Amino acid sequence: MKVSILNIGDELLIGQVVNTNASAISKMLISAGMDVVEVVVCADDRTAILNNLNRLTSTNDAVLMTGGLGPTKDDITKKVLCEFYDSHLVENQTALDNVKRIFEARGYELTPINRQQSWVPECCTVINNVMGTAPCMWFERDGKVVVSMPGVPFEMENLMRTEVLPRLQQHFRTGHIVNKNILVQGIGESFLSDLIEPWELALPQYMRLAYLPQAGMVKLRITAHGDNRDRLDAAIADEVKKLYSFAGQYIVGEDLETLPEAVARLMESNNITLATAESCTGGTIASKLTAIAGASAYFKGGVVAYSNEVKMCALGVQHNTLEKYGAVSEQTAREMAEGARQRLSADYAVATTGIAGPAGGTPDKPVGTVWIAVAGPHGTETRLKKFCDDRLRTIERTANEVFSMLINAIKR
Amino acid sequence: MKVSILNIGDELLIGQVVNTNASAISKMLISAGMDVVEVVVCADDRTAILNNLNRLTSTNDAVLMTGGLGPTKDDITKKVLCEFYDSHLVENQTALDNVKRIFEARGYELTPINRQQSWVPECCTVINNVMGTAPCMWFERDGKVVVSMPGVPFEMENLMRTEVLPRLQQHFRTGHIVNKNILVQGIGESFLSDLIEPWELALPQYMRLAYLPQAGMVKLRITAHGDNRDRLDAAIADEVKKLYSFAGQYIVGEDLETLPEAVARLMESNNITLATAESCTGGTIASKLTAIAGASAYFKGGVVAYSNEVKMCALGVQHNTLEKYGAVSEQTAREMAEGARQRLSADYAVATTGIAGPAGGTPDKPVGTVWIAVAGPHGTETRLKKFCDDRLRTIERTANEVFSMLINAIKR
Repeated sequence: MKVSILNIGDELLIGQVVNTNASAISKMLISAGMDVVEVVVCADDRTAILNNLNRLTSTNDAVLMTGGLGPTKDDITKKVLCEFYDSHLVENQTALDNVKRIFEARGYELTPINRQQSWVPECCTVINNVMGTAPCMWFERDGKVVVSMPGVPFEMENLMRTEVLPRLQQHFRTGHIVNKNILVQGIGESFLSDLIEPWELALPQYMRLAYLPQAGMVKLRITAHGDNRDRLDAAIADEVKKLYSFAGQYIVGEDLETLPEAVARLMESNNITLATAESCTGGTIASKLTAIAGASAYFKGGVVAYSNEVKMCALGVQHNTLEKYGAVSEQTAREMAEGARQRLSADYAVATTGIAGPAGGTPDKPVGTVWIAVAGPHGTETRLKKFCDDRLRTIERTANEVFSMLINAIKR
Repeated sequence: MKVSILNIGDELLIGQVVNTNASAISKMLISAGMDVVEVVVCADDRTAILNNLNRLTSTNDAVLMTGGLGPTKDDITKKVLCEFYDSHLVENQTALDNVKRIFEARGYELTPINRQQSWVPECCTVINNVMGTAPCMWFERDGKVVVSMPGVPFEMENLMRTEVLPRLQQHFRTGHIVNKNILVQGIGESFLSDLIEPWELALPQYMRLAYLPQAGMVKLRITAHGDNRDRLDAAIADEVKKLYSFAGQYIVGEDLETLPEAVARLMESNNITLATAESCTGGTIASKLTAIAGASAYFKGGVVAYSNEVKMCALGVQHNTLEKYGAVSEQTAREMAEGARQRLSADYAVATTGIAGPAGGTPDKPVGTVWIAVAGPHGTETRLKKFCDDRLRTIERTANEVFSMLINAIKR
């Protein structure tokens, strides 16, 4: 089943907004076993929308559109869809009730222009958008499906997940797809591939394996396709069990997306706590950990020790250590981690100190030099890394290295 | 001048990678006064690439391509470009020297497959990619330009900025474009529009004004188009001066992109220092501040006080305050900010405490309730906000509110 995505909006074309809608939709379609053939971004322009609709419906089974559904005059998607389907706009009761409900809840008066949000091409099926005023519209002609969704990311994502994807699966009888993610860390993609080759080659025909390498880790995705969901679940569980015998030592967890999620899972399941002491990462590690709901159960807190003063007064780093070895040194990283562990009463503490750049490098310690320390109940481990001269990439890679080291320390 | 963008790569279509290349290229083209008509993402697939090349070159002056230039067998862009231009691959000396240089620097041996990186269609002009092994290629036919760039974002961005954009401007004689950004904060877009209407209407014909609203602020972009760069600069400076007489109190700074950058500018120019005390934002405020190069000049550090324990021991919040008013209260926010200001010896300190959710809400303090405090030399200001039930959006909006309050406190 072939699907293309058509995102409409000037704000996407001028680069003001990054097109996260396309990747969010793609991910959902792919995990449902559908093929995404093309993504097109065009302006709120009649000819551009019509041309793309004609072209994409001729070569795909479905076209998923976003954007251009607002009440302002530059949003023309509904009018163009009327033209494409030789239809006309009518007020839709479901959409009107929804608009009224939202305006009432916000305490605003319903203006005529907002009421127009409930007008849709007569030939479409309205899918109610409980999160916003623009209705989602489903069109069918000659076996081809076109769905027009609002461009607001959380409205679109909710509609895709709860309504559009299930309807597409039913309409095109795509059968059942079951996905399973296994997060692997501490081994490169090519080494992992060699290690699990016998297992991979023995996978049943209806299962596919994808390697999704990300910063500091590899996500393995097993996809199984068939008619009986329970049987697929059981077969995947069986294969995952076998995978552990090949690569168990590198598996961080199942159904996880990121390294901080893996940290969270380990913290929760081991009932342990964590603290952070960050210099060069400047709060990024704490920020990534606390972005995950439920972090307060294991994350005590952290210190962003940017100045030497704060390293000393908030973490207890010795003046002598800073004098003798410098702020970017193994000794300072170690004292930061141990200080945070003790002062914030946590089972584990991580510390970073380095030169993120672009300034501040020396011949001995060039930009990109980072010391990391992980302190835990079994002692403190340190590591020196030499990253690049791009500030944000160094911060990001340092954070990933910290999460990896922490995961290994806990698992030991 | 009309330009379209063609991004090639399966990783973009399956949603594994968000297409930031398209928005980065668009931004540069728009600021050079060119129109971006369409963005297309297609697979590493011969027919898809050929069809899109045919279609896009017929309706545009230039097509900028990214991706599909790697040494692996699924990267076919160069072969398809040969077919499109009826050309064939030849080894290019500039590209080969570049590949050799990079492999030598990394201490790797040059394999035959990597040497193939230097093969390009004979009809193209090679633009050297100093940051990577895949050469950039410039094609011309019938007045239309096609440029093929590598898909690695920092390689592409460097090539666009230093080579491709200047060559496009020269080739299509687009004249000079001068852009000026003015960051405005503390006033909504529609009120700002009313306030500066007389100024906007009196702008000379060769100047355009764009409103770019972003979280917590509005960016005004003035674009001037003409033949003489110095005269354009002078005319824009003149108009900016007039703008201050209409909206000076809301202007945070010129040529800034984000609120944290505005904070950084104010801190530097006033020679003052800052500390943070974060509960519900969990390090996000510190992380955004330290993402900016040079932050160590004014940012002392911060405490991520997630647990009550840390609020007390690291920031000096009174046990009694937490007992009587709770962790999410005006009093706690105030003591956090004042504690951070004093203990980290900073001129200003900001504090956040709230319920980011999804759990932890009560009837009195539902999810999304946030208290913010800003402590400075002239006292402490507090503010209560009620955000939504989405954890990450609440964290983001709290951070923006903090930056706004801080900017206003410093400017007073």
